[in-house]
Amino acid sequence: MSVSKLLEIIDEKKNPTVVGLDPMLSYIPDEIIEKAVKEYGKTPEAAGEAIFEYNKAILDSVCDIVGCVKPQSAFYELYGFAGEKALARTASYAKSLGMYVILDAKRGDIGSTAAAYSAAYLGETDLFGSPVSENLYDAVTVNPYLGSDGVLPFVKDCILHDKMIFVLVKTSNPSSGEFQDVTVVSGDKSAPLYTLVASKVNEWGAAAMGSASYSSVGAVVGATYPQQLGLLRAQMPQTLFLIPGYGAQGGKAGDIACAFDKEGRGAVVNSSRGIILAHKKAGGDPKKAWHDAAKAMKDDLLSHIGL
Amino acid sequence: MSVSKLLEIIDEKKNPTVVGLDPMLSYIPDEIIEKAVKEYGKTPEAAGEAIFEYNKAILDSVCDIVGCVKPQSAFYELYGFAGEKALARTASYAKSLGMYVILDAKRGDIGSTAAAYSAAYLGETDLFGSPVSENLYDAVTVNPYLGSDGVLPFVKDCILHDKMIFVLVKTSNPSSGEFQDVTVVSGDKSAPLYTLVASKVNEWGAAAMGSASYSSVGAVVGATYPQQLGLLRAQMPQTLFLIPGYGAQGGKAGDIACAFDKEGRGAVVNSSRGIILAHKKAGGDPKKAWHDAAKAMKDDLLSHIGL
Repeated sequence: MSVSKLLEIIDEKKNPTVVGLDPMLSYIPDEIIEKAVKEYGKTPEAAGEAIFEYNKAILDSVCDIVGCVKPQSAFYELYGFAGEKALARTASYAKSLGMYVILDAKRGDIGSTAAAYSAAYLGETDLFGSPVSENLYDAVTVNPYLGSDGVLPFVKDCILHDKMIFVLVKTSNPSSGEFQDVTVVSGDKSAPLYTLVASKVNEWGAAAMGSASYSSVGAVVGATYPQQLGLLRAQMPQTLFLIPGYGAQGGKAGDIACAFDKEGRGAVVNSSRGIILAHKKAGGDPKKAWHDAAKAMKDDLLSHIGL
Repeated sequence: MSVSKLLEIIDEKKNPTVVGLDPMLSYIPDEIIEKAVKEYGKTPEAAGEAIFEYNKAILDSVCDIVGCVKPQSAFYELYGFAGEKALARTASYAKSLGMYVILDAKRGDIGSTAAAYSAAYLGETDLFGSPVSENLYDAVTVNPYLGSDGVLPFVKDCILHDKMIFVLVKTSNPSSGEFQDVTVVSGDKSAPLYTLVASKVNEWGAAAMGSASYSSVGAVVGATYPQQLGLLRAQMPQTLFLIPGYGAQGGKAGDIACAFDKEGRGAVVNSSRGIILAHKKAGGDPKKAWHDAAKAMKDDLLSHIGL
């Protein structure tokens, strides 16, 4: 099970940090931009090249202490197929460094379409009668709004191809409560919608338990809602959490500690802008700024959990 | 407002049909496959080429009677950047025929990421300081699970760039009720979740009313749930509906009629497999089979609505 691989990488690095690669051209150091524009002009190809070189430099600088990376698909889709190429090159490079790669794509659709998304990112694609896979990603994020038949094709591929998904349960953004927190009644019981999604995640994940104590069906729960994080940890003891919202979005390490088990396992914590923009704040050598920011995050997390 | 353009196209063709382009290699006529493989080998590039030529042939055959097309992003993402190229070429070709192009991508994310998705598909992308747009799509589908800050960046681009979105309210798939139909209580009122989403769609859409009687913020409501379709029409009088689920998924024209206003406007109805797979059932000239299927759908819909 792919969840075992993730747990091993966390143990090896002694670090539950995920670096979120959400690149904007305005973030990228001038020398990388200039080199790409010199070679390709002010084209989408140059944007793709600059994004890949930026990601590569970040990964090179943090890979000694960070084992997990999460590219956010939107920032690659911005540049059409040149962006898609940059995404694939980034994932491939991260894999070559032994990193665990979570594609943050938040896909979700009706069954037949969900199967196509899952084939694209976790499973196999039909290429004129032959099943092929670039095997670029270890995991993908999934939106549950369409219910089980939008999620189960991904679960099937998790089992068949040793992958993971992280289902959105309680997201980190300010308006996540508009629908996720509404009070749902069923018979004489009432509970917030996110707990209903959480119980479905438990159900979907039961089929994807390996030898690990966690399922390959994980959950996205924001660092910005510590109370809900604690409640969901209690409700989902076998679910690995992907926790966005640390750093730039306001989530603190002390608030997240409740998501980890006694051994300091059970969650990974993402920071995007807090790390990949560190060079803009710190000045000097960008690689040192990214590494320092990643090291500070690791130390901050480890001071609150027992890993 | 882009909604006016869609209404004009429907009036001009006297047809609310949307052809869903969800291409699988197994659907594509042999001669198209053979030509692509001969030129590019059994590669993703050949898959992209075959998909584009298939789409082009379908569009050529139906564009005299159908004004609107909806490529489903998943089936292009299956082939990585070769697939993305096929999608862009398809959208561009449909535009050259004067068609309205809805990208079915069901994107939804936190604010900053939603802004990137919206820039990619509706707005403008930063290319080294210059805002650029390929302007390939007239509309995109959006998943509301993250709440207002995941949707409003798209609404902003609808207004700025004369585009539309269709927000998932009640989807056509069998398990859509798992979360969308749950009973939500607020004070002494209770209602299904999809009505809460619908009231947010009304709110988001109020800012995007043009001179048309419909907003540029539309809703996805499945043909497979006619009762909910009628209730949602009453709740959302100024919302244009994108109705999937006709044909292969089981939705009938008589069930959908309630979504249209007295003039026969207010909704577009998608069929994917019912049209793009018609050649497999009918045999003979594929172009005739696609056109016949599109014509039959148009006649079926018009026999139930007053367009």
